Amino acid sequence: MRREKLISNIRNVPDFPIPGIQFKDVTTLFKDSECLQILSDIMYEMYKDKGITKVVGIESRGFIMGPILATRLNAGFIPIRKPGKLPAETIEETYDKEYGTDTVQIHKDALDANDIILLHDDLLATGGTMKAACDLVKRLHPKAIYVNFIIELKDLNGKDIFDPNIEIQSVLSL
Amino acid sequence: MRREKLISNIRNVPDFPIPGIQFKDVTTLFKDSECLQILSDIMYEMYKDKGITKVVGIESRGFIMGPILATRLNAGFIPIRKPGKLPAETIEETYDKEYGTDTVQIHKDALDANDIILLHDDLLATGGTMKAACDLVKRLHPKAIYVNFIIELKDLNGKDIFDPNIEIQSVLSL
Repeated sequence: MRREKLISNIRNVPDFPIPGIQFKDVTTLFKDSECLQILSDIMYEMYKDKGITKVVGIESRGFIMGPILATRLNAGFIPIRKPGKLPAETIEETYDKEYGTDTVQIHKDALDANDIILLHDDLLATGGTMKAACDLVKRLHPKAIYVNFIIELKDLNGKDIFDPNIEIQSVLSL
Repeated sequence: MRREKLISNIRNVPDFPIPGIQFKDVTTLFKDSECLQILSDIMYEMYKDKGITKVVGIESRGFIMGPILATRLNAGFIPIRKPGKLPAETIEETYDKEYGTDTVQIHKDALDANDIILLHDDLLATGGTMKAACDLVKRLHPKAIYVNFIIELKDLNGKDIFDPNIEIQSVLSL
């Protein structure tokens, strides 16, 4: 019931960001206070017993549910951002995209060996950005890493590029 | 006591993003689970009796406390983003910056005449971006607009450029 309510509130935008792509717009979920609460509740239930100490969100769409989840779990929130946006000392990972490369950064002191991390982004497509984010977080040696998305596009098999020991969960598999 | 705890956890970064600027890094507040809860509590107390129906956050740092506040207030969350990031039909405002101009966009159907809006960003400096965001939201004719920041830099008098009828509150005035 709750997931049906979410699915019916996703907006499908044809040809965005490029022709041929049917974009899953989650802003229509965030806009609806009931959907926002359902997302918060489902994700909280998924992770409440994992001992999460920090939720790491990927700029920019991973910044929306990530902080909500952090407060629900009594954890801190850590941003992963594009180059040049974080003011203190950072480490970075560069990864291949369909055309060219992209880079993500995290503050070097954002987490440590006592942390149990939940990495969050809105959508799992081919998984390149989240894989780079995982590699980045691993270099800071947390105790454990969990990965979470609002939506997983199952036909793209994005999960296949991750270490099979990492637990990856999505609210919706479409 | 709560505000002292927040102030002691802000990181001051010299010469970021340009020489001569002492940057107030709030990621060290978000990272600390206790500070994140304090921020959430103080902001919730500020707005719990205002009938807020939608919290509007400005990309990217306004995406962190904005969604937390939205769930606390049982409101929806609306992003204001840089050009080309929102997939459906948008309206936009262009505003002057120190060098050149900048543009912000919102989905045209993000809010309506029944909404009471809380606009949020992390920092009030000269206020240009928030003023443009206010003008953008006004064009969609909500019932009322409130404006909120985590930190207000009082020496810069950023409040002066806003319509005096708009209530502007900050958690910290530094």
